[in-house]
Amino acid sequence: MNLLILDESDRISENSFRVSGNRQDHIIRVLKLGTNDQIRAGIVNGSIGSAKIERSDKTSITLNFVADENQLPDPIPCVDIICALPRPQTVRKVLNLAGTWGVRKLDFIRANRVEKSYYHSPLLQPDKMRPYLLEGLSQGKQTRLSLVSVHERFKPYFEDVFIPNDSADSESSLKLLPHPEAESNLSQVFQSTNRRIVVAIGPEGGWVDFEIEFMMELGFSCFRLARPVLRVESAAIAALSQIELLSDFDKFCSERN
Amino acid sequence: MNLLILDESDRISENSFRVSGNRQDHIIRVLKLGTNDQIRAGIVNGSIGSAKIERSDKTSITLNFVADENQLPDPIPCVDIICALPRPQTVRKVLNLAGTWGVRKLDFIRANRVEKSYYHSPLLQPDKMRPYLLEGLSQGKQTRLSLVSVHERFKPYFEDVFIPNDSADSESSLKLLPHPEAESNLSQVFQSTNRRIVVAIGPEGGWVDFEIEFMMELGFSCFRLARPVLRVESAAIAALSQIELLSDFDKFCSERN
Repeated sequence: MNLLILDESDRISENSFRVSGNRQDHIIRVLKLGTNDQIRAGIVNGSIGSAKIERSDKTSITLNFVADENQLPDPIPCVDIICALPRPQTVRKVLNLAGTWGVRKLDFIRANRVEKSYYHSPLLQPDKMRPYLLEGLSQGKQTRLSLVSVHERFKPYFEDVFIPNDSADSESSLKLLPHPEAESNLSQVFQSTNRRIVVAIGPEGGWVDFEIEFMMELGFSCFRLARPVLRVESAAIAALSQIELLSDFDKFCSERN
Repeated sequence: MNLLILDESDRISENSFRVSGNRQDHIIRVLKLGTNDQIRAGIVNGSIGSAKIERSDKTSITLNFVADENQLPDPIPCVDIICALPRPQTVRKVLNLAGTWGVRKLDFIRANRVEKSYYHSPLLQPDKMRPYLLEGLSQGKQTRLSLVSVHERFKPYFEDVFIPNDSADSESSLKLLPHPEAESNLSQVFQSTNRRIVVAIGPEGGWVDFEIEFMMELGFSCFRLARPVLRVESAAIAALSQIELLSDFDKFCSERN
């Protein structure tokens, strides 16, 4: 636990929060903290600061949270992920990494190689997904929660989101499509970062040709993420880390000029 | 299974291999292959080619392997990973990713924040680690197996491997140390890729100051991998993907000049 994440449902008064379960267990058994000890904490979609343990009993811990005065707000995350709906165990990992990396929007979508049965997983209920996102925030030490949605069709999803209209999600974003057979790497298709970036992560076995062509018509750029074929969650991490490296480099260059 | 991995222990004659268990299950139930069907296959530390199913019964499948004639050998992997020994479930993930990415050498080492009990895990026996490496090869579609070793001390490990002598592992490698508080990113410390690259991945909670100073004295360069604090296995993937991007970019530039 790199940051104790406090959710609205934990709040019992203006600055008081009550936590139990895994978080309590971690604070007591792993961090070995007790009454009057402090821990770094953050409120979902809110401030980061420190929380002081006011009471601790068998079932819960009550903490008083004080936001840092001069804290910089979390940088607004600019990366969205589109992910062909994977099997439930991978959905958990993708939710977790979305939280960790501060992904703005995570859209699970249908693709030819997505098994229909995956849509029946109880995990896809928002209240079931939330704990994995929160765990990711705690790992990544940040508080901005990804907006997650699940879409049951392929083409209508893209038509809604990417066919140019006045939507902020349309033409103004850099649309990236990792593809094992692409010739370019990310540095060759990457452009200025003052825009949103969308990365489309395919299903196990990859996108089919129709899907790739359709996305390319909508302005997605293919690039080769890595030599080996990666699992869904590894591909997402590889893409996010390369984007972060190049954005940072771009920022560095623009600051110097 | 992106590539069926055949091990020496599967060989029953020059070109014949017998597989059972998970691999048999995947070939029969997932890929729905039967007698005379072909599958892409590779021999550990050897050729890639295709394997034809000659016999299939309840307990095993017998395949005839033919190496591709004009195949390019796997590129010699140039990245070594040093990893502070993590908990067993993470060891499995690190072995898997080492296989997938074709890491040359994977050294698990001791660090201040490594729990002693981790060294008692039965998983650290070579025959227990091997299946996770092989699974990684199959995922990454490559055949070169990482050399894995487990070291019980911190300083003696580095003194053996990195104090300059005639060893190939000493001064000639680019030594990288991801550190959340470093100011530079990888592009700022990266140099020509005609050398080995070593990346040292810290334990949960990070390296302690002494460890960082010691490694820096041995020529390790600190760099910031990503904004969020990453899990061990995510940090390894992020580092490997950034190294691949920059190596590729370097190669691209040197070919153009």
